[in-house]
Amino acid sequence: MLEQVEQYIKDHETDFVDRLNTLLRIPSISTASEHAGDIRQACDFVKDQLLAAGVETMMLETAKHPAVFADTGPSDGPTILVYGHYDVQPPGDLSLWKSDPFEPTMRDGAIFARGSADDKGQAMCHLMAIEAWLKVAKKLPCRVKVLIEGEEEIGSPNLEKLTEDNLKRLACDIVVISDTSKFSSEIPALTCGTKGLVYKDIRITGPKQNLHSGCFGGTVANPGNVLAKLIAAMKDENNKITFPGFYDDVVEVTGKELEDIKALPFDDAQYLKDVGSPALDGEHGYSTIERKGVRPTLDVNGMYGGYMEEGAMTIIPRMCGAKVSMRVVPNQDPEKISKMFDEFVRANCPDTVKVEIDTHGVAAPYATPLGLPAVKAAVAAIERGFGKKPVFIREGGTIPIMALFKRLLKAESVLMGFSDPNCNLHGPNEFFHVSDYLAGIRSSACFFSELAAGAR
Amino acid sequence: MLEQVEQYIKDHETDFVDRLNTLLRIPSISTASEHAGDIRQACDFVKDQLLAAGVETMMLETAKHPAVFADTGPSDGPTILVYGHYDVQPPGDLSLWKSDPFEPTMRDGAIFARGSADDKGQAMCHLMAIEAWLKVAKKLPCRVKVLIEGEEEIGSPNLEKLTEDNLKRLACDIVVISDTSKFSSEIPALTCGTKGLVYKDIRITGPKQNLHSGCFGGTVANPGNVLAKLIAAMKDENNKITFPGFYDDVVEVTGKELEDIKALPFDDAQYLKDVGSPALDGEHGYSTIERKGVRPTLDVNGMYGGYMEEGAMTIIPRMCGAKVSMRVVPNQDPEKISKMFDEFVRANCPDTVKVEIDTHGVAAPYATPLGLPAVKAAVAAIERGFGKKPVFIREGGTIPIMALFKRLLKAESVLMGFSDPNCNLHGPNEFFHVSDYLAGIRSSACFFSELAAGAR
Repeated sequence: MLEQVEQYIKDHETDFVDRLNTLLRIPSISTASEHAGDIRQACDFVKDQLLAAGVETMMLETAKHPAVFADTGPSDGPTILVYGHYDVQPPGDLSLWKSDPFEPTMRDGAIFARGSADDKGQAMCHLMAIEAWLKVAKKLPCRVKVLIEGEEEIGSPNLEKLTEDNLKRLACDIVVISDTSKFSSEIPALTCGTKGLVYKDIRITGPKQNLHSGCFGGTVANPGNVLAKLIAAMKDENNKITFPGFYDDVVEVTGKELEDIKALPFDDAQYLKDVGSPALDGEHGYSTIERKGVRPTLDVNGMYGGYMEEGAMTIIPRMCGAKVSMRVVPNQDPEKISKMFDEFVRANCPDTVKVEIDTHGVAAPYATPLGLPAVKAAVAAIERGFGKKPVFIREGGTIPIMALFKRLLKAESVLMGFSDPNCNLHGPNEFFHVSDYLAGIRSSACFFSELAAGAR
Repeated sequence: MLEQVEQYIKDHETDFVDRLNTLLRIPSISTASEHAGDIRQACDFVKDQLLAAGVETMMLETAKHPAVFADTGPSDGPTILVYGHYDVQPPGDLSLWKSDPFEPTMRDGAIFARGSADDKGQAMCHLMAIEAWLKVAKKLPCRVKVLIEGEEEIGSPNLEKLTEDNLKRLACDIVVISDTSKFSSEIPALTCGTKGLVYKDIRITGPKQNLHSGCFGGTVANPGNVLAKLIAAMKDENNKITFPGFYDDVVEVTGKELEDIKALPFDDAQYLKDVGSPALDGEHGYSTIERKGVRPTLDVNGMYGGYMEEGAMTIIPRMCGAKVSMRVVPNQDPEKISKMFDEFVRANCPDTVKVEIDTHGVAAPYATPLGLPAVKAAVAAIERGFGKKPVFIREGGTIPIMALFKRLLKAESVLMGFSDPNCNLHGPNEFFHVSDYLAGIRSSACFFSELAAGAR
């Protein structure tokens, strides 16, 4: 039967791409309040894909953006919950995009558009696989529930309540999420660990208004200089984060797991070329792939304040701010790290200025237990979909919901990522290879039958 | 005759205020290219004031914004060159203004508008004094030349060439400039020293585009973190600037001059209340008034880069930048300091990022020789105009043109400042007291006759 499903997928390639492109044209940016209408439109589009496949859907409303839910397939055997999101990051500086971020454009076999990889394209893989099974076999090989939300890029603020309110509805044996990447363009991967996130916005305020830097210079603390000292103090000369106790809960990766990581065909020179920095850098004592996958990090995401326009304006700014995020690794508690950050900032901020700290997201890290039947099924499915065995990798990105599902649904998650690791997610010129999109659809279709077969 | 001139000023108070308000309504912002038309309009307005007084004028065109020039009065006796500027700083954050920056609004006897103090109001003092003399006495007591330019707030980039091209036309015995402040609301001042300015824009670039802070965190240097370290390294724990040799040419103020400074009725508590910071701060080992007047400073004027909007976007920014200015004191060479800054930045910037440095202004400090006849005349004129003896002060602000005039015209400058020291110049809610405006007009009128009398 899987062969027929695969044939259906082959026969509908153009249609599947067209439908993804339609979704990509909707600028469903969840961080910007003026896009509420687009969010609603993207949500409706997702719903319509399921309806077209013959699946009943319902909208799960939240305090902000709604999620789409569906439930189909036989009630005996394992139940999969497919999680994805239809919201996207803002496009950022438009001048850096080679084509309109919301007008999908095909170049070199890839679809360039915001959200093509993260996560519209990858979420669509599962929807198209469901359709293929239903069109060909009239039913799915196992029970599949679908939850596609619209708040992932703002830290899923309402997902906890939504899950709590729908515990029975969402109950499942395994969660499958496609919001990660392959190991390289050539090598598919199963991501077995992700980092957590703690995102902060620090605002330092000095005088009650901008002051003339000549008349007032040297008499009051400058919020910009204070902010610089504060951020500089967060890392030492070895790029280690200096908050007391920051590394206490980090479990060093050693033995077989470290060997496996080191055995991955990771090419520093190629990686450097891809990112375009003058040199690689990071925490001393660890290889690039270790820093990327298994070590906690701290990064400035943005800085702002005072005069930011063309030319010169001679002022002591009233306020300067920075958005600083940390990625924490399995066994670190993001709530503890969040408090640690605040304490460090308050302890190191001089009393010559005021400091405010906003927390924009606190998400836990996650590691998939490698012995699960679903991991075996996923490996087989990816191998069949991509024609190549996947490697196990750890990911620096954060998917805030695995820890939540584990706590509330008592279900582990499997991360089947289909996009290119250089797909520019969150940056300009985000793309998703059409071949990866199709391989993703095939992998999802195979995963359903593999999991059903494995459970028998 | 001076009494009659003063009576004329008294009789025309309303008219003088109305005319200043008309000038203040023109948003002649020289830093922003879209205001070129407003610049031209403000220039024409200045010209018209002189024409209305019966003075012939000419426009001195430059590569950017034109200056107004006039020359009137007897050719025997001393020649004064009145310098001022009709361009203004951008208004900055409009939400912090209590009234439209370009709709002058009277509150508590003061005119609130961008440029009211810096420098439209103060330049107008001289134009109105010229008019008063000409209307009452048909001629000025000494020769007065006027040069009102439109590029001061962008560092007077064309003034050197303009002066070189018009050496004979601008020839004078003394330059008088009203672009400084009184010592306090109650005490008028003669500013006998100003700081120079070195204004830099540093841009740190890392990856070729914004990167996902999860997928790429820990593998490349973050331009925001590098920038913070760089700025933090510019000052030590005593708030001393760390560039090797930075203080070498600073002449410590000692003896009588230091005593005079310390004798000024400066109230740290009131000053702190006015600026609104939680505490005063600056170079250790010096009082507030010393830091303000006679010590060099370094300040962040603005920071920018990465994600600066509402909410969270998880990126390693491609680029982060900061505008950093230094105020240098008499005997420091701003060109040397400019090079020193660049060398420090290049030496301390890791090779994991690229750094670009723009220089937006390099201006020399200046000190007026206190034995000049013009200093005596200015003291007498301010005492008569304000009804109170002025104190001698040093100013933290920069007027980039005294050193230029000294070099090219061989003329010293006298700084007669009429505005309140808390007049919010370069900040929101800039104001100029009407009483100071009128006292400034009277002081200017008296200065013309005092200088003529002193020279006889």
